[in-house]
Amino acid sequence: MSPGAIIVWELLGTAVLLLLGNGVVANVVLRKNNGFQAGTLFITFGWAFGVFAGASLAAPTGAHLNPAVTLGLAISGKVSWADVPFYLIGEMLGAILGAVLCWLTYKLQFDDHPNPEETLGIFSTAPQIRNKAWNLVTEIIGTFVLVGWILLTPAFKTAADGTPTFGNTALGYAGVSFVVLVIGISLGGPTGYAINPARDLGPRIAYAFLLPIKGKRDPDWNYSWVPVLGPLVGAALAALVYLAVHNLT
Amino acid sequence: MSPGAIIVWELLGTAVLLLLGNGVVANVVLRKNNGFQAGTLFITFGWAFGVFAGASLAAPTGAHLNPAVTLGLAISGKVSWADVPFYLIGEMLGAILGAVLCWLTYKLQFDDHPNPEETLGIFSTAPQIRNKAWNLVTEIIGTFVLVGWILLTPAFKTAADGTPTFGNTALGYAGVSFVVLVIGISLGGPTGYAINPARDLGPRIAYAFLLPIKGKRDPDWNYSWVPVLGPLVGAALAALVYLAVHNLT
Amino acid sequence: MSPGAIIVWELLGTAVLLLLGNGVVANVVLRKNNGFQAGTLFITFGWAFGVFAGASLAAPTGAHLNPAVTLGLAISGKVSWADVPFYLIGEMLGAILGAVLCWLTYKLQFDDHPNPEETLGIFSTAPQIRNKAWNLVTEIIGTFVLVGWILLTPAFKTAADGTPTFGNTALGYAGVSFVVLVIGISLGGPTGYAINPARDLGPRIAYAFLLPIKGKRDPDWNYSWVPVLGPLVGAALAALVYLAVHNLT
Amino acid sequence: MSPGAIIVWELLGTAVLLLLGNGVVANVVLRKNNGFQAGTLFITFGWAFGVFAGASLAAPTGAHLNPAVTLGLAISGKVSWADVPFYLIGEMLGAILGAVLCWLTYKLQFDDHPNPEETLGIFSTAPQIRNKAWNLVTEIIGTFVLVGWILLTPAFKTAADGTPTFGNTALGYAGVSFVVLVIGISLGGPTGYAINPARDLGPRIAYAFLLPIKGKRDPDWNYSWVPVLGPLVGAALAALVYLAVHNLT
Repeated sequence: MSPGAIIVWELLGTAVLLLLGNGVVANVVLRKNNGFQAGTLFITFGWAFGVFAGASLAAPTGAHLNPAVTLGLAISGKVSWADVPFYLIGEMLGAILGAVLCWLTYKLQFDDHPNPEETLGIFSTAPQIRNKAWNLVTEIIGTFVLVGWILLTPAFKTAADGTPTFGNTALGYAGVSFVVLVIGISLGGPTGYAINPARDLGPRIAYAFLLPIKGKRDPDWNYSWVPVLGPLVGAALAALVYLAVHNLT
Repeated sequence: MSPGAIIVWELLGTAVLLLLGNGVVANVVLRKNNGFQAGTLFITFGWAFGVFAGASLAAPTGAHLNPAVTLGLAISGKVSWADVPFYLIGEMLGAILGAVLCWLTYKLQFDDHPNPEETLGIFSTAPQIRNKAWNLVTEIIGTFVLVGWILLTPAFKTAADGTPTFGNTALGYAGVSFVVLVIGISLGGPTGYAINPARDLGPRIAYAFLLPIKGKRDPDWNYSWVPVLGPLVGAALAALVYLAVHNLT
Repeated sequence: MSPGAIIVWELLGTAVLLLLGNGVVANVVLRKNNGFQAGTLFITFGWAFGVFAGASLAAPTGAHLNPAVTLGLAISGKVSWADVPFYLIGEMLGAILGAVLCWLTYKLQFDDHPNPEETLGIFSTAPQIRNKAWNLVTEIIGTFVLVGWILLTPAFKTAADGTPTFGNTALGYAGVSFVVLVIGISLGGPTGYAINPARDLGPRIAYAFLLPIKGKRDPDWNYSWVPVLGPLVGAALAALVYLAVHNLT
Repeated sequence: MSPGAIIVWELLGTAVLLLLGNGVVANVVLRKNNGFQAGTLFITFGWAFGVFAGASLAAPTGAHLNPAVTLGLAISGKVSWADVPFYLIGEMLGAILGAVLCWLTYKLQFDDHPNPEETLGIFSTAPQIRNKAWNLVTEIIGTFVLVGWILLTPAFKTAADGTPTFGNTALGYAGVSFVVLVIGISLGGPTGYAINPARDLGPRIAYAFLLPIKGKRDPDWNYSWVPVLGPLVGAALAALVYLAVHNLT
C-alpha cells in the first residue's frame, strides 16, 4: 500500500476514534448535555465502540490507530519498519483532527461551561494519584494486554503487509473493541487508560495550540510523556512475549 | 426490486425502528413504567438495538431506514436515483406508523402523565442549547460519521441494487447498531442525535396531527428543519469524502 | 426429530432461560444480594442473555422456548402442527423447572426477605397500571416485534423441520437476544414484557403450588391470562403479516 | 500439544482473566479510581469481557482457564485425563500471576485505601449470607449452567484434543463471555459467582502469601473450599447430563 493511502486511512480511522472518545467525555463532563454525569460504564462504552467504528473503517491498512500497536506489529515483524513513519503521521494528524471535531460538536457546551480550566480532561488523561513511576506501570500493563491480545490471539492474525485476516466482516473488529472495553473497565481506574500515545498527545496538542477555549489551563506537559512512554514500553514487552511464545510452542 | 417491495420493506423496518426508539424514551420519561428515569445509557441502547431489529428485518432492500442513508448511497452511485422516491415513501410512512404504535403501547402511561406538554420529547429531538447554526453542525458531524462508516467500511459493502453484502447473517447488522450506539453516547449530548430526517419528522407529524394526547404543546416546527437538513448535509459530505478517497487510493 | 428429543431440548433451554430470567429479578429485588437495586438495564440484560444461553443450548430443536414462537412458526408452515404439543410440553415443564432452580439459588435470600408477599414479581409479570385491554395491546405489540423479526429476517431462516439455518455458530443466537434486549428496554415499561406464555405461566404455577415461600400472596390468577393470550395473538398477527409479505414480494 | 505448551497458553489466558476480573473489583472498591462505586453491571461486564480476552488469547489449548471446565471436558471424554494436570498447573499459576498484576496496576490505590482489611473481596469471593450448604448449592447451579452450556451447545463443539471448533474468529469466544455475563447478572447475587476454583483460590493464595498489603485480614480459609468444591460438583453434574442427553437423543 502506498504511503499516502496509509496516511489517509489511518488519519480517517484515528479521527473517528478521537471524535467519539473525546466526545463521550465531553457529553458526561459538560453540563448542558443529554449524557451529563452518565457514569463510567457510559464512558468506557464510548471509547470501546469508538474503536469499533474507527478500526472497521480503517481496515485497508490494518487499522492500527495507535503508535503502540504500530510498534508492536513492527517488532513482531508483521509490519515493515519502512511503513512505520506513515502510520505515525496518519495517527497523529487523525488524533488532532478528531479532537477539533469534538470541540465543534460541543461548541455551545464548551462556551456554557462555568469552569473551562476543567476541560483538559475531555481531551487527555490524568492520573487519580500522581506518581509517575506507578502511573507508568499502570499504562504499561494496560497496553501489554491490548497489544499482547492483538499479537497472540490466533483468530486475529495480521498479514505481513498489515492487512488483518480476522474473518471478513466488520464484526471482526468487535473483538478488539471488547478488549478495549474491558481494559477501560478493569484497568482504567488509576490513569484513565491512555494505552495509545496518539490518543493522548494529539488532543493535548489540539487543546494547547488550536482550540479557542476561553480561560483554559496549562496542558500539563509535565505528565504528558507518561501516556506516551508507558504504551510504547507495554507494546514492546508484548511483542517480546509474542516472539518468545512462538519460539516455545 | 419492485417499487412496492421497496416501500413495504423500508416501511416495516422503519416502523420497528421508531416503535423501539420512541418506546425507550416513553419508558424513561413517563412515570408509571419499569424503565422510569433509567438513564442515558438505557436510551442509547434502545435506539441502537432498535436499529439492529429494524435493519436486519429490512435486509432485502438494504435497510436504509433513513433518508440521509438513501441520499449518501445515491450520491455514491450505490443506489439508483429512480428508486430514491420509493425509499423515502417507505421511510416516512414507517416512521409515522412506528410513532403511532409507540403511543398504543404506552397509552395508559400517556393518559396518566401529569405534564402532557412534555411528551413531544418522546417523539422528536430538541437541542439542549438552542442555536440553530451550531445545532446543525452537531447533526452534520453525527450523520457524517454514520454515513461515512457505511460507505467506507470495506466489510459493509452495498451492491449496486441496494443489497448489502455484509456477510450472510443478521449479525452483520450488529455493526451498524454499534456505530449508532457510539454516536448516541459520544455525539448525542447537544441535540439528541436525530441523524435521520424520517426519525425526527415522521413522529413529529404523528404527534401534531394523529395522536389524541390531551394538552399537548405545539410541535416545535421552528426547530423541525434542523434535524432534517443537518443529516442530509452530513450524508452528502460523507459521500463526497467516499468518492475522493476511492479516487485517491 | 423424535417427540422425546423435542421435549428434552426445549425443556433444557427453557429451564436455563427461566433460571436466568427469574434469577436476575431475584438478584435485584431481594436485599442480601450483590445485585440489589441494580436497575432496569441490569434486568433487561439478564433476560436478553438468558435467551442467548437457553436458545443456543436448544439449537437442535430450533430453540423456540416460547409457545408464541411455536405458534408463529406453525401458522407460517415452518413447524409441523403434529410437533406442536411436544414443544409446548417441553416449554412448560422447563419454565417450571427453571423457576424452582431460581428459588434454590436464592433460598437464603428468600428466607431473609422481610416481605415475602412481594416475591411473586420475581417469577411472573404484573402491569404498572392495571387495565387488561390495554395491557393486552402492549403484550401483543411486543410479541409481534419478536415473532415478526424471527419470521421475516432473511438471515434468521428456519428450516421446515424446525432447525435454524442462522449461520453455524452459537453467535447466531446473539441476534434474537439483541431483539429481546431492545423489546425489554423499549416496550417493557407498562407490563414487564412477558411476550412468552410459558415464561409467565410456568413460574406462576411453581410459585402457587411448589415453592415453600412463607407468607406468600395469591398468584394473581386474575391477571394471569393476559400474558398468555397477548403473546399468542401477537404471534398469530406476525405470522399473518409474514404470509402477506411473502405473497406480495 | 506438548505439556509445556498447555501450561503456557493456559497460564497466559488465566492471568489475563484474573488481572481483568480482579481489576474491575479494585476499580470499584478502591476510592481513588475512575470506576469507584460504578455498580454491579460494571463489575459483571469486567468479568465477562475478561473471559473474552483471556479465552480468545488461549484458543490453542481450548481456553479452559478453569479447573471446572477441564473436569467437565475430561469426564465427557473431550480432553485426555493425561493432560489434565498440565491444564490445572497453568490455570493455578496464571490465576496467581493475574492477581499480582492487578495489585501492581492498583498499587497506589491499595496504599491509599483506609481499610486494607476490606481488600480481600477484590481477590476472592465471599457469600452475602454465610451458610456453606446453600452457598454450595448456588455455586453448583451457576457452574452447571456454564459447563452445561459449553458441553451441550452444538455450535460450541470442542475436539478431542481440546481445540475448540467454534467457527474461526475470536468472536466465537463472545458466546462464552455472554454466558458468563448472564451468570454474573442472574446467579451472582448470593455468592459472587466464583464458578471457577482457580479464579477464587489463586488470588486468595496471592493475597495470603505474596502481596505486601499492610493491615490485611485473614484470607478466610474457612470459606475457601466452597468456591472450589461447588464448581467441581456443578461441572461433574453437567458432564453427566451431557452424556445422558447424548445417549437419549
